[in-house]
Amino acid sequence: MGIIGVIISAKDRKGFLRDISTVISAHDINITYVQQFLQDGVAQIYLELEDVEDAERLLDEIKGVPDVISLKTYRPFEQIYGKRVIVIGGGAQVSQVVLGAVTEADRHNIRGERISVDTIPLVGEEKLAEAVRAVGRLHRASTLVLAGSIMGGEVVDAVKELKEEHGIPVISLNMAGGVPDVSDLVITDPVQAGVMAVMAVSDTAKFDIKKAKDKRF
Amino acid sequence: MGIIGVIISAKDRKGFLRDISTVISAHDINITYVQQFLQDGVAQIYLELEDVEDAERLLDEIKGVPDVISLKTYRPFEQIYGKRVIVIGGGAQVSQVVLGAVTEADRHNIRGERISVDTIPLVGEEKLAEAVRAVGRLHRASTLVLAGSIMGGEVVDAVKELKEEHGIPVISLNMAGGVPDVSDLVITDPVQAGVMAVMAVSDTAKFDIKKAKDKRF
Repeated sequence: MGIIGVIISAKDRKGFLRDISTVISAHDINITYVQQFLQDGVAQIYLELEDVEDAERLLDEIKGVPDVISLKTYRPFEQIYGKRVIVIGGGAQVSQVVLGAVTEADRHNIRGERISVDTIPLVGEEKLAEAVRAVGRLHRASTLVLAGSIMGGEVVDAVKELKEEHGIPVISLNMAGGVPDVSDLVITDPVQAGVMAVMAVSDTAKFDIKKAKDKRF
Repeated sequence: MGIIGVIISAKDRKGFLRDISTVISAHDINITYVQQFLQDGVAQIYLELEDVEDAERLLDEIKGVPDVISLKTYRPFEQIYGKRVIVIGGGAQVSQVVLGAVTEADRHNIRGERISVDTIPLVGEEKLAEAVRAVGRLHRASTLVLAGSIMGGEVVDAVKELKEEHGIPVISLNMAGGVPDVSDLVITDPVQAGVMAVMAVSDTAKFDIKKAKDKRF
C-alpha cells in the first residue's frame, strides 16, 4: 500500500475526471491530488492515489476508460520535492531568509532528506493576508516564514487562522506590527530565520519549534 | 466566465470526489486542480474550476451532494502566487540563484505582478533527472533554472524532455557536463541567472529568452 503518481493522457473532453474517479473509487482508493493540463490538444491528468493495493489491476481498468490514450506512473511529489517551507514577504529581508533556508535545506537534502523552499515576494496588508491564508490550501506546506519590517492588521488574523485551522507553524522576523505576537517563533536575523525554519521541518535536526515557543532569537 | 477556487468540507468517505465531479461535469465545467486533505477528521477538498458561468447555481448544487458540510470560495492560486520560477541544484550556487530570483521577483510583484520562486536543493544525476522531469507535472511552472557546477548524463535527457514535451524553457549556469548545450540560455553568474529567469517569465520585462537563445552570458 502506498501513494503513486499517474499521468493519464486522454482525448480532451468534459466528464473525463468523473469517469476516472468512478473507476478509482470502486477500488476503495483515495485521490489526494489531481492536476489537469492541455498539451498539444491532448488532456494530461496527473493524479496521486493513496491506499493503492493492486496497482497493476487498477491501471488496467483505467486504460479501459473511453478516450484514454496512455498511462505513466511516477513517484509522488512528496518523495521528489518533499516538505515545503513557504516564505512570504518583501524587501531586502525576504531574499536573506531564502538564502538561509536554501543553504540549510541543501545540507539536509545532501544527506537524503527532501525539503523545498518556496517563496512569494509580496507586500501590502491585504495581499499578504490572502497569501498567508492560501498556505493552508497549498500542497505539502509544512511551515511559513514571514519576512518584512512591519506586518499587522489583517495579516495577524490570517496567521492565527493558519495556525489554528491548519496546524501550520509560523515563524516571524522580529518586526513592527502585531504579527510577531501571534507567531510560534520570532527571529531577528533573516538568514537564521530561514535556517531555523528548515531545522523545524527536518526529520533529523534536534530543533523543536514547540520547545522554542515564546523565545525571541 | 473565469477560474474559481472552492474548498468543500465534507464527511470523509471514498467516492466523494466522484460524486462532486459528476455534479460539476454536468455543468460543462473543467476541474483543473484538486487537492484533498484531512483536518480533524473532516475531509477538505480544494478545487479549481474553469469555465464557470453561473457560480451561484453550481455551488448550490454542490451543497446538495450527500455529506457536504460547508463551502468556501477563493481566488485561484494563479492569482495569488502567480507563475513559478523553479530552481533545482546544489551547493553555493543554488542559494545565489535564488537570491537573484527573489530580489527580482520582489521588484516585479511590488508593481502588481505575481511571480514565485520555488527551490529544491538537490544533487546526484538520478535525483536531479527525476526532479527535472517532475517540473513538467508541477502546477504553474513557468521556467526552470539549473544551478550547479556539473550536470550531464540523464539530466540532459530530462532537460530535453521538459523543453520538448512541456514547452518549459530551461536556464543553465555555465557549468561542466552536457546540460548547458541543451539549455535555452547559459549564464555564468548565479545571481544574474536568477534575475534573468524572472525577467523571462515577467509580463513587463523586455527580455525575451527566445531572442537570447544560444548566447552565453
